Amino acid sequence: MDAKGNGEMAAAAAEDVERAIAGPTNPMVTPLLTDLYQFTMFYAYWKAGKHHERSVFDLYFRKNPFGGEYTVFAGLEECIKFIANFKMTEDEISFIRDSLPSSCEDGFFDYLRGIDCSDVEVYAISEGSVVFPKVPLLRVEGPIAVVQLLETPFLTLINYASLVATNAARHRFVAGKSKMLLEFGLRRAQGPDGGIGASKYCYMGGFDATSNVAAGRLFGIPLRGTHSHAFVSSYMSPDEIVEKSLQSSDGSHTCEDFVSLVQTWLNKIQWSPSLRGIFGETNQSELAAFTSYALAFPNNFLALVDTYDVVRSGIPNFCAVALALNDLGYKAVGIRLDSGDLAYLSCEVRKFFCAVAKDFGVPGFEKTGITASNDLNEETLDALNKQGHEVDAYGIGTNLVTCFAQPALGCVFKLVEINNQPRIKLSEDVSKVSIPCKKRSYRLYGREGYPLVDIMTGENEPSPKVGERILCRHPFNESKRAYVVPQQVEELMKCYWPGSSGKPRVELPALKDIRDRCIKQLEKMRPDHMRRLNPTPYKVSVSAKLYDFIHFLWLNEAPVGELQ
Amino acid sequence: MDAKGNGEMAAAAAEDVERAIAGPTNPMVTPLLTDLYQFTMFYAYWKAGKHHERSVFDLYFRKNPFGGEYTVFAGLEECIKFIANFKMTEDEISFIRDSLPSSCEDGFFDYLRGIDCSDVEVYAISEGSVVFPKVPLLRVEGPIAVVQLLETPFLTLINYASLVATNAARHRFVAGKSKMLLEFGLRRAQGPDGGIGASKYCYMGGFDATSNVAAGRLFGIPLRGTHSHAFVSSYMSPDEIVEKSLQSSDGSHTCEDFVSLVQTWLNKIQWSPSLRGIFGETNQSELAAFTSYALAFPNNFLALVDTYDVVRSGIPNFCAVALALNDLGYKAVGIRLDSGDLAYLSCEVRKFFCAVAKDFGVPGFEKTGITASNDLNEETLDALNKQGHEVDAYGIGTNLVTCFAQPALGCVFKLVEINNQPRIKLSEDVSKVSIPCKKRSYRLYGREGYPLVDIMTGENEPSPKVGERILCRHPFNESKRAYVVPQQVEELMKCYWPGSSGKPRVELPALKDIRDRCIKQLEKMRPDHMRRLNPTPYKVSVSAKLYDFIHFLWLNEAPVGELQ
Repeated sequence: MDAKGNGEMAAAAAEDVERAIAGPTNPMVTPLLTDLYQFTMFYAYWKAGKHHERSVFDLYFRKNPFGGEYTVFAGLEECIKFIANFKMTEDEISFIRDSLPSSCEDGFFDYLRGIDCSDVEVYAISEGSVVFPKVPLLRVEGPIAVVQLLETPFLTLINYASLVATNAARHRFVAGKSKMLLEFGLRRAQGPDGGIGASKYCYMGGFDATSNVAAGRLFGIPLRGTHSHAFVSSYMSPDEIVEKSLQSSDGSHTCEDFVSLVQTWLNKIQWSPSLRGIFGETNQSELAAFTSYALAFPNNFLALVDTYDVVRSGIPNFCAVALALNDLGYKAVGIRLDSGDLAYLSCEVRKFFCAVAKDFGVPGFEKTGITASNDLNEETLDALNKQGHEVDAYGIGTNLVTCFAQPALGCVFKLVEINNQPRIKLSEDVSKVSIPCKKRSYRLYGREGYPLVDIMTGENEPSPKVGERILCRHPFNESKRAYVVPQQVEELMKCYWPGSSGKPRVELPALKDIRDRCIKQLEKMRPDHMRRLNPTPYKVSVSAKLYDFIHFLWLNEAPVGELQ
Repeated sequence: MDAKGNGEMAAAAAEDVERAIAGPTNPMVTPLLTDLYQFTMFYAYWKAGKHHERSVFDLYFRKNPFGGEYTVFAGLEECIKFIANFKMTEDEISFIRDSLPSSCEDGFFDYLRGIDCSDVEVYAISEGSVVFPKVPLLRVEGPIAVVQLLETPFLTLINYASLVATNAARHRFVAGKSKMLLEFGLRRAQGPDGGIGASKYCYMGGFDATSNVAAGRLFGIPLRGTHSHAFVSSYMSPDEIVEKSLQSSDGSHTCEDFVSLVQTWLNKIQWSPSLRGIFGETNQSELAAFTSYALAFPNNFLALVDTYDVVRSGIPNFCAVALALNDLGYKAVGIRLDSGDLAYLSCEVRKFFCAVAKDFGVPGFEKTGITASNDLNEETLDALNKQGHEVDAYGIGTNLVTCFAQPALGCVFKLVEINNQPRIKLSEDVSKVSIPCKKRSYRLYGREGYPLVDIMTGENEPSPKVGERILCRHPFNESKRAYVVPQQVEELMKCYWPGSSGKPRVELPALKDIRDRCIKQLEKMRPDHMRRLNPTPYKVSVSAKLYDFIHFLWLNEAPVGELQ
């Protein structure tokens, strides 16, 4: 094989691909977004003439987040966009020169000028898949020095993405399928693209919409938002509303004084049979704000009702405006609660809506939407469910996007083979020992259609076959093993970046398709793996052959102690 | 006053400033990096002809993070860079048009085309200051609709920045002044600029260096990094080292076979009087990696020693290479421990270094540097201090950059005045009631030079005077008040963005200066506010006049209940 010729062909092919694949979403994701030691190692490899050596790295995590037993894999698209456009600029190279000891040779910096990812191969589980500890999410092959440079950006792009997608999926699980889930986290996110990433990956994990306009634009995620407390308190009284007319929904007539119409309705509500005595004078600044908002968005009237007092001011004011809109053929969307006892308040609000529907004969008014926000998380959603509530939609921010319950996922990137020699990383902590060898991994499905176990094998072992019994061994615990007769076998990793291998490249799917995949995968899991309390761990295993090899290599590398 | 003429002058002045102030570090920070409701509110304001109304918003937090009693304010520079360049593009406006209901009028989108921040004023506490709950970090004045657009980006830019700077300061406090603190968090950060922001603000909060090359380049932060476990396991044995020669430090001679020199030293160490019997055969892949790294960086040899076994392999291998380097006039930098019992291991390593220094007569070798990493946080640093250790430098990642102990700071942005009318936001939770009015705030210092109390006053009240007794009241608790005779009075907010006010603009200081300010401010605090266990809360107060006004307004806005 003419290695060079092959490399050149690959470079040409890679160029074509580069044209097709845009760069990372965040332009700050450059070859310099990495740890300095990736460059010091590169120099040491180069100095030793070792930088070309073909290496295989696995990217995986060791423990599912949030005390759960599953993780959603996300961030792959950004990794591929990164390597498709990987090229160092003169400025970047000159900065590296300044950052390394002055003894470093010029030839090295010339070499950096030429590097790209045309000789790197990336195999990965599809983005949006449900994944488990120890099973490689990515297998990255290529010249060791270049692949090392990718370690930090790949981890940065995958760790948080997978963490927050998992968090979103967990929130969806507790909220239930029928609720609308809105991501409202931008202002509390860990920096601007903490916010933008959160919006993307929460949508992927099953949220319906975001408040983040930039994310809506970048990724086509549906946007939601109406008004804040400041909007309410920026008004003093309805007197300040100058333009008071509103055309009816069908355009047939115009109400010249919508402000008075609202006031009329407020009086009617106050003395209506079911609501008499519930409230006295409502807050006039709030009434003005709601009226003004309705004049601007008669088809999209959703009001935040807790600026002063939900039941004694916010809800009566909302209903007055909503009924005035109803007179003109518009249907109010609903209200948002952002404080207090959301279970209790949502039930009170629903009662109020039902009373209005009944007293004034407005069918459907009882179904007016109730959105809840304010420091929601898995626990509060669960508590709301247990108490009983009338919430239709949740706006979730801080806890969702910062992953408050566990703000980091610990993906690692470990060398498993170099020059066709398997490598192992030992540790006194068994959970930190790496699984050596270039591997394949499979998901085996049982009779009921649920995934039963993931199994890793050596690259060249025959794949598990439907209907054939196979021994699945725990990688480190001798006594844990089980025979499985798979009803379906799914190879997990596909080639997302073929480098110079000539293999076909799997296309990056659209976000919507990744989201659909994710939702389907989550539904396919056996329920006991998914529950919040004491979920059953999903089994991850290795083939008998790989098991034996791991332990052979381990004994080979570990020093023998001497008791004294 | 000719408001329009004034506005035009301001616009011209703002243009000059714009030229001088670069945009935000992250190009994704655009006017669209905000919540959709800022635009729906903008439309409603515009529709009501209210968008021009002069408003005042305070940006503040309600509770110090990490169970502490102080916070470091960070993120101001990015906010100013953002507003200095605030302008919507045609594409952005067209996206907003698509995102709002189709009933929105064309005139609104024309209006968006013209908006900028030339009529906005920003007063802020200096970045890097120690700050406390409820005291405004920023006061933003301007046309209500434009100022609302700034809410989300300002919060996004300040919340995480202040949180992580505070976290860094807390880590520095526990580690002590003499230790080197390295931020290693990029791979676990919440997205790319979670990582870049962490590097910037950890440096601001007192860290010494980062591993993040992009942050080093953007902000001039010192960079650190050597090699990883993968580097070690990428070698099989010293046989594979081809280029074995190393010139001496002074250039006077060349060692033709550095690999053999290392081997000779390894044998000597193994049989030296103090070390005999401590280790047998060391790992050859590790020895090869260290040797190769030393050949590449003879002046910067720092080795990661825990890939196989610290005491029986990593340290003997390191010492053999270090002593060989020593023969050639190079001084090894040190080792890094990344697992195990860091207190115990660091002491064992120090003993080993002392034995080498003594047995081989290498003065100074006992002081070879020891860096520790692996899931460090405030607690583990504190535990290391209590156990006794020999660590000189800490590399801290996950817990530092994701602020694992509390991953979000809850800064809020509240309307306090509109059209010269003070506004209040009520809540059943007293801690959530906002402090109304356009205010000034001061830090009052006591006899011993420590800050005693922060006090907020109405904009037009006379400022507190040195030597004059002033009553400081808790804003919400009637019984909490104290007289203070300040020895020094510091007005906290300065004008960082004058808008059309004609006031002079305070220049944005360099990062290094902000860092120095931060370190000095932290040192100036009374120690009981700073301690980790049960710190004393720092007092935050309002003037007697402001107190009375808050409570007048509160009674005015809150609905009167009716017990039934």
